[in-house]
Amino acid sequence: MANIIRINMSSKDISVETNSDYEFLGGRSLSSRIICDEVEPDCEPLGKKNKLVIATGLLSGTIASSASRISVGGKSPLTNGIKEANCGGVAGGKLSKCGVQALIIEGKSPDEHCYVLFINKDEYRLEEKNELKYLGNYKTIKMIYEMYGKRVGILCVGPAGERGLRGACIAASDPHGELKFAARGGLGALMGSKGLKAIVVDDEGCNLISYSDKEKFMELAKDFNSKLANDPKTTGTYHNYGTTGIVKAVNAMGAFPTNSFRYGSTEHVDNLCGEKMNELILKRGGEGKLALSCMEVCAIRCSTIYPDESGKKIVSTMQYENIALLGSNLGMDNLDSVARMNYEINDLGLDAIDTGCALGVALDEGYGKFGCEEDCMALIGEIRKNTALGRIIGNGALITGQVLGSSRIPTGKGQGFAGYDPRALKGNGVTYSMSTMGGDHTAGNCFGSRGTVDPLGKENQGELSKTLQIQIGTLDCIGLCMFARGPLFADPSILADIVNFRAGSSYDKNTIWDLGINTLKIEREFNMKAGVSPAHDKLPEYLYEESLSPTNAVFDLTEEEMLKSII
Amino acid sequence: MANIIRINMSSKDISVETNSDYEFLGGRSLSSRIICDEVEPDCEPLGKKNKLVIATGLLSGTIASSASRISVGGKSPLTNGIKEANCGGVAGGKLSKCGVQALIIEGKSPDEHCYVLFINKDEYRLEEKNELKYLGNYKTIKMIYEMYGKRVGILCVGPAGERGLRGACIAASDPHGELKFAARGGLGALMGSKGLKAIVVDDEGCNLISYSDKEKFMELAKDFNSKLANDPKTTGTYHNYGTTGIVKAVNAMGAFPTNSFRYGSTEHVDNLCGEKMNELILKRGGEGKLALSCMEVCAIRCSTIYPDESGKKIVSTMQYENIALLGSNLGMDNLDSVARMNYEINDLGLDAIDTGCALGVALDEGYGKFGCEEDCMALIGEIRKNTALGRIIGNGALITGQVLGSSRIPTGKGQGFAGYDPRALKGNGVTYSMSTMGGDHTAGNCFGSRGTVDPLGKENQGELSKTLQIQIGTLDCIGLCMFARGPLFADPSILADIVNFRAGSSYDKNTIWDLGINTLKIEREFNMKAGVSPAHDKLPEYLYEESLSPTNAVFDLTEEEMLKSII
Repeated sequence: MANIIRINMSSKDISVETNSDYEFLGGRSLSSRIICDEVEPDCEPLGKKNKLVIATGLLSGTIASSASRISVGGKSPLTNGIKEANCGGVAGGKLSKCGVQALIIEGKSPDEHCYVLFINKDEYRLEEKNELKYLGNYKTIKMIYEMYGKRVGILCVGPAGERGLRGACIAASDPHGELKFAARGGLGALMGSKGLKAIVVDDEGCNLISYSDKEKFMELAKDFNSKLANDPKTTGTYHNYGTTGIVKAVNAMGAFPTNSFRYGSTEHVDNLCGEKMNELILKRGGEGKLALSCMEVCAIRCSTIYPDESGKKIVSTMQYENIALLGSNLGMDNLDSVARMNYEINDLGLDAIDTGCALGVALDEGYGKFGCEEDCMALIGEIRKNTALGRIIGNGALITGQVLGSSRIPTGKGQGFAGYDPRALKGNGVTYSMSTMGGDHTAGNCFGSRGTVDPLGKENQGELSKTLQIQIGTLDCIGLCMFARGPLFADPSILADIVNFRAGSSYDKNTIWDLGINTLKIEREFNMKAGVSPAHDKLPEYLYEESLSPTNAVFDLTEEEMLKSII
Repeated sequence: MANIIRINMSSKDISVETNSDYEFLGGRSLSSRIICDEVEPDCEPLGKKNKLVIATGLLSGTIASSASRISVGGKSPLTNGIKEANCGGVAGGKLSKCGVQALIIEGKSPDEHCYVLFINKDEYRLEEKNELKYLGNYKTIKMIYEMYGKRVGILCVGPAGERGLRGACIAASDPHGELKFAARGGLGALMGSKGLKAIVVDDEGCNLISYSDKEKFMELAKDFNSKLANDPKTTGTYHNYGTTGIVKAVNAMGAFPTNSFRYGSTEHVDNLCGEKMNELILKRGGEGKLALSCMEVCAIRCSTIYPDESGKKIVSTMQYENIALLGSNLGMDNLDSVARMNYEINDLGLDAIDTGCALGVALDEGYGKFGCEEDCMALIGEIRKNTALGRIIGNGALITGQVLGSSRIPTGKGQGFAGYDPRALKGNGVTYSMSTMGGDHTAGNCFGSRGTVDPLGKENQGELSKTLQIQIGTLDCIGLCMFARGPLFADPSILADIVNFRAGSSYDKNTIWDLGINTLKIEREFNMKAGVSPAHDKLPEYLYEESLSPTNAVFDLTEEEMLKSII
């Protein structure tokens, strides 16, 4: 059984344990389970009693494609409920190779030093690295590479996390030295509150992954990888556009957040879409790149490097959500502006979605002009300078709206909406309000089902959200990327078998979903005990009244319909 | 039966109704009941669906002393639960004389105009008075007196309420043209959110109060008034010190909030106490005054006018809570500083308690120095200028702490603590966390019982809080001042009879408390439906860990003990 490492930041003690109850758990099923087992639901999210759990996936570190996402869990300072955020990067696979199933970071450093947790095959140790304090993420990983060598995997927080801003995320280094983000829910503020700046994993000389049936695993994994590599979605969409291929479709359905969710589409769509991104990356060349993998083994390769006109890298990765929230939501008309803002937000260590929502609310309240990159950059600069206004925005959309006096705050359970207006994609309204995760883009995103359930209809939205919460939740619970779902949902026995061959569990194509179902259930119980009651399962009132162009939709689902989503 | 006036600020319609279900209700029993009957508990506090209820007391407008407090109710933008705040002033009595039992202000003005609701014997009307927009409270009442004559009673909000700051209160004019405040819970932001700047009541030619048995009422009221006038607490304490007489006692027991609740006593107590206030008012003379009444009929007369060295008025009224929160809590060493800050806060229309807590948190986070009036005035100036930092502080202690990154936020259910550290007066810790009202000084204040229940002990605190919640709650439910409790608690049949003779009810000395009990029960139900669950019945974690000098107390009551307070 792999090790669970417990790091007490109050005492700086590190201990190692194993837990047979957790044998068949990984990813979100493990991180959420540990939080539910160990954290008092009504504790203060940034206090001593909350814990940060970093869990590896059930297939992590193996040759299976897209399966080494790292899962981060804790009580969220945004939603006050349980939160799981996961991302790619290389730390997940490396932790698995080092024989680590999960890290439990507890307590709170009583001193002001800046700590790095170093993990390799021989040891786990905390090191004072005050030279990293308040450094941006890009400088942080550069210095960590200099200190520990280029082969390490890194998880770290930027100044936003260190300063306890609720919009803060956790960054993960990828194979190209770029960053991925466990972005949602303010878990970067939780990590920062512990006094932990970074986790550095060196897997040199380690391959401690055990298999129940290695031969069958390898065979099935190769088959799965090949299916995924040959999936037209992989080669046609992800390799060319990453996640940005859906911009035009979301805009066409009128669900593309524009000017702080005032409109559902933008006239600038042709300059913000994936096709434009692809064209610019190819035309500009230089450091620009398409089809990069975000972890060691991935056939999907949806990462990109977006260059400026001279070919110099601006940011990696240009993504759909960031184009939506930092682009059209702020009234922008070009991808270069999005990329430049995105770089700053990444460097500060903030969630681009919640920060995009917060910036939108600030512009809507007159703190700048929509479509003006300079105004937005000035607001982001306030966060960098740690001014009062900067701290407001860095604390996310809800606090921004509350402080600045907005009655139009696009949040679900305190978390900023993802890039789909719930009036024109009603299933996402159900997920934003009813799911354990709040306004999330991965907790049951109904966009992909627009062909089967009318996004503007009043029926089947609750059931659709429920199904997707379970399906995508199950992938989260394994540590698999949701973009790998094509071959897996087509034949769920692959999903069951690959987990069984690795972990020794005995799932089948029907029972594999129990991983998701059971996790969603305990998350919901945690939330109820945390005081996140049905009264919090509500969308903002303005969505029920203010109609959204061009569909003129309002959010009009009945409570009965919403309740169908409960797992 | 008296009239209930319904003012729809969306349509500007005004209608009049009576409700026999409310016949025997007044004050908090009426305002809370209407909120529970009419407001969706999970609505947005500053949205269209919330309502502001202004209710007169059961004895209001009569000759009974201290009985014309006005009760203000609504869903609080600070606690997200139900809130009642009441205060003196003349509007309550005048409304009763005009035959008004309650005002229900609903909807939300769709335009940006500034409205005044005018009430006299002939009519109820809304008037656009844009010249009042964003004016401070002192200028506002001055202009209203000019517009409507000096005899009117006024309820109004300052710029804080108009700008939706959650720390905003509702001001009430008193017989001397000074202000009293329905301060707690952010109900000024609720009034402001409706687009209503002021309510003006002219009772000329009105005396529409009905009596079940006028003769007996008059006899009993005179007897009660005389008992109250001759109570040594009235003549010895209130006439000399107002509410400030307890400063030394609270400081001596180590419960006097000092430097943002870091200490329980201050070395400057001799310069902050009621004895010093009395000495300075008498010595300085001029406009300074002691023993003023805050409503038309009051034997207690605890209001004061505090003058500067030259005898010029600084502020009315210097009160205990304000000395605690704006004085020692901010490290101040003199009453003049408290008075000057208090004036500004009154003028802005903010709750001095929550704002004092918020300023303390800001100083604790380095936004100024404790004991420096200039720094505090600069922060208050930010509120005046409506800057980002000003909006943070004006939104109260909880948001201030969340935005500025504090782990020491002195709030109960989101509302700033009153001037008693719950570690050294544990019963108040129960009230702050468990009562329906949150961190309040009138919802079950255990200071007065320090002789019977050890303030530092671990026992009987839950029961004490419960008893006081009911007893003081019952006075709130009648519209009586809590300082009138001496003769009434000594012989509760007076309380029952005086209500019966006025309203025709049939309470006795045992059943009169049902008014409080029933109200507390429906308030609790409202809160549960609003999502204010038992998880919110908690004090901040730092109180359990950080010991408070000079007693070295921490908050250490068991959950079992706390639960004894549930009504």
